[in-house]
Amino acid sequence: MQKHIPYRIYLTEEQMPKQWLNIRAYMKDKPDPFLNPGTLQPIQKEELTPVFCEKLVDQELDDTTPFIDIPKPVQEFYKIYRPSPLCRAYNLEKALDTPARIYYKFEGNNTSGSHKLNAAVAMAYYAKEQGLKGLTTETGAGQWGTALSMACKYFGLDLTVYMVKGSYNQKPYRKAIIETFDADIIPSPSDTTNAGRAVLAEHPDTSGSLGCAISEAVEVAVSKEGYRYALGSVLNQVLLHQSVIGLETKEAMEMLGEYPDIVIGCAGGGSNLGGLMAPYMVDKLMGSGPRFIAVEPASCPSMTRGKYAYDFGDIGKITPLVRMYTLGCDFLPSPIHAGGLRYHGMAPLVSKLYHDGYLDEARCCKQTEVFDAATLFAQYETIVPAPESAHAIRAAIDEAVKCKETGEAKTILFGLTGTGYFDMTAYMNYRSGKMEDYIPTDEELQYGFDRLPKAD
Amino acid sequence: MQKHIPYRIYLTEEQMPKQWLNIRAYMKDKPDPFLNPGTLQPIQKEELTPVFCEKLVDQELDDTTPFIDIPKPVQEFYKIYRPSPLCRAYNLEKALDTPARIYYKFEGNNTSGSHKLNAAVAMAYYAKEQGLKGLTTETGAGQWGTALSMACKYFGLDLTVYMVKGSYNQKPYRKAIIETFDADIIPSPSDTTNAGRAVLAEHPDTSGSLGCAISEAVEVAVSKEGYRYALGSVLNQVLLHQSVIGLETKEAMEMLGEYPDIVIGCAGGGSNLGGLMAPYMVDKLMGSGPRFIAVEPASCPSMTRGKYAYDFGDIGKITPLVRMYTLGCDFLPSPIHAGGLRYHGMAPLVSKLYHDGYLDEARCCKQTEVFDAATLFAQYETIVPAPESAHAIRAAIDEAVKCKETGEAKTILFGLTGTGYFDMTAYMNYRSGKMEDYIPTDEELQYGFDRLPKAD
Repeated sequence: MQKHIPYRIYLTEEQMPKQWLNIRAYMKDKPDPFLNPGTLQPIQKEELTPVFCEKLVDQELDDTTPFIDIPKPVQEFYKIYRPSPLCRAYNLEKALDTPARIYYKFEGNNTSGSHKLNAAVAMAYYAKEQGLKGLTTETGAGQWGTALSMACKYFGLDLTVYMVKGSYNQKPYRKAIIETFDADIIPSPSDTTNAGRAVLAEHPDTSGSLGCAISEAVEVAVSKEGYRYALGSVLNQVLLHQSVIGLETKEAMEMLGEYPDIVIGCAGGGSNLGGLMAPYMVDKLMGSGPRFIAVEPASCPSMTRGKYAYDFGDIGKITPLVRMYTLGCDFLPSPIHAGGLRYHGMAPLVSKLYHDGYLDEARCCKQTEVFDAATLFAQYETIVPAPESAHAIRAAIDEAVKCKETGEAKTILFGLTGTGYFDMTAYMNYRSGKMEDYIPTDEELQYGFDRLPKAD
Repeated sequence: MQKHIPYRIYLTEEQMPKQWLNIRAYMKDKPDPFLNPGTLQPIQKEELTPVFCEKLVDQELDDTTPFIDIPKPVQEFYKIYRPSPLCRAYNLEKALDTPARIYYKFEGNNTSGSHKLNAAVAMAYYAKEQGLKGLTTETGAGQWGTALSMACKYFGLDLTVYMVKGSYNQKPYRKAIIETFDADIIPSPSDTTNAGRAVLAEHPDTSGSLGCAISEAVEVAVSKEGYRYALGSVLNQVLLHQSVIGLETKEAMEMLGEYPDIVIGCAGGGSNLGGLMAPYMVDKLMGSGPRFIAVEPASCPSMTRGKYAYDFGDIGKITPLVRMYTLGCDFLPSPIHAGGLRYHGMAPLVSKLYHDGYLDEARCCKQTEVFDAATLFAQYETIVPAPESAHAIRAAIDEAVKCKETGEAKTILFGLTGTGYFDMTAYMNYRSGKMEDYIPTDEELQYGFDRLPKAD
């Protein structure tokens, strides 16, 4: 008899992970080192410690330790909002009339509304442990800023968030939530930094950019006594912290006697996909493992149409050079509603695994197709998903429909990274039929490729 | 050794309630019957069935059956978003330095953002079972409209929501969520009903009222073939369905070896408090049980300053007369941010229990005090609460501080009915120092009392 599988499974506190999983330790070919953009030499620890906390730099550069202990205070914070549920999408399966079994790991049940909190807690903890006064960061859509404000308040740290001015003006509620956790929030560009003042002098009416907000946040972090900078995606350390998603998932799946045939994640900077797939990717590196699918927006197709090359991590060109799938940091994606996927590159770790064939497939979706999937999912599973998460839903539905055609009862797992409560403008746009699809032309992509730094 | 108590406890599917609990069956003195406002005679079933589904009318009038089976399809829907977690507020306890143990039952982790879904599911199911085409309802803040739209979509029913025009214009995101679940949403007053047209003729620029929206929804329900009306609070049937909150809570508390000394709920229409306290109230009716505290806004003090009298349930005076604590249906409370508590009366069942001394205490709070508590709670427990729920938090904090003074390690339980993601305007208002407290004068209250119907 098939074991009864509940709609939602929560691990107990005892079952929650005590260590993060470092995929890199299992890779024979490691991701290429970060380079100093001036010397083109591998970056050294002491070049990074003025920007990031020391322990986080260690984690960033550590590609040999398989498991890293989650500090006790971080474990305690995790217990407040985790474990997140692993859900069986019975109603979606019924709606699709598919023999596939669909599971999703739902990370949206916390005030940040997404998985971002998993890394924010770790960063705030290490900053506190190092005796720092505070952190700086940037935020676009606002989920990362919210997550870090929650974590900094909890550990008693100051936080300054540079929020892209356009978002700052359009999303007063996000600002209000961040302020509820006592963070300072400054629209970027601002007159509080040299970087901001320079942009304002040239473009006084600009609505800002993530690149400028990063430059401002980093400038304050390196120049102010007792401050460091925190970044919410792309970095190795972030993927390490996010491995808690995959570890919980694998534990819960094992309780059910399940192992996924397909693992699907949306991919912007790569933090969610990198975290969800972590333990299954280790299986893959050892010779077994499921099929992995990364889903990105057609408007910003870094894996499906980008180059695997050294590039700056930010638009402002102040970061080290990292080897990744990229559209070039000068490529400016069209404005889509899944702001969290609007990044020119992809986490170096995810990029390397894709390049070497361990991450099986990247595919891109148009945003109208994504909102078709989001709406169907909301109606049957009752959760209104974030537009970013809905990319994974789109692919999961497509795979389940294939199973119907072939009659295969595959086990499909995807990451539902967050809720769409702050994205209802996008849903309104979709419903009114006004949503447009943006697909860059080859010429538009060439513009970014032509401006890639010469580092290879 | 004290048993280890986790931060959050989730029941398994097997442990979830299979029956709702009907408090009235345990009362020696039953709540007074509803009266026909014309004849002043107790209302008969056949007077209610044109408005409500038949099974729901049975439940409304049934004051003898202690347990009523939860239909299997409703149980299945509950499993999608329930059980809700019972949380131990370790961090709040630490912040308050109190010996009290504070627990809260968190009902906000679903797309309606509140406990309202518990009753919506039941109502949609019974409508479907009766072979109806659809339901109508009204919504003010939007949580009830969202909940019923989710439930109707799930069971394949049409839904028309009359949303108070002021809210409709101010809260486009709520409208967008409701539309995602394919409900029709009409700003009230509208030209789709006689009631709406009459109001518009006299006040073309009105922003509407809940009273008018109810009148429109009921008019459509009784005049359209295959439609009935659904109400989200106040009624006996709603409190019955909401007993799932209390039943889950009691089961989880028993697993921990805990029994509350104090049970606290915010009270607007009474649905959350009535549901949370249900099994503990049965204990009280049997001679033991905890201390109960109902918390209401100072601006709308139906229990603390109202009269126990027969009154209309709505401002439009189209409902039966019900005996309850009321400020009079002509009393118009000042606009506060906790819109869900802005109701002139209190559920007849809650009112009766308070009148007879089983519900120990009602207290009222000013909204600035409530937002002090909401902010403290958010910062320590990481959940941004709905303004309504924050009334219960205020009282829980005050009780925990008393415990610090007396050294008593009491067990405090409160209901956290929902999240405040759609209430950030209120938080901004609070944070900017512009929030005002409204306390009606005795003269203002007298206006409502003078207009109470003569039925006693």
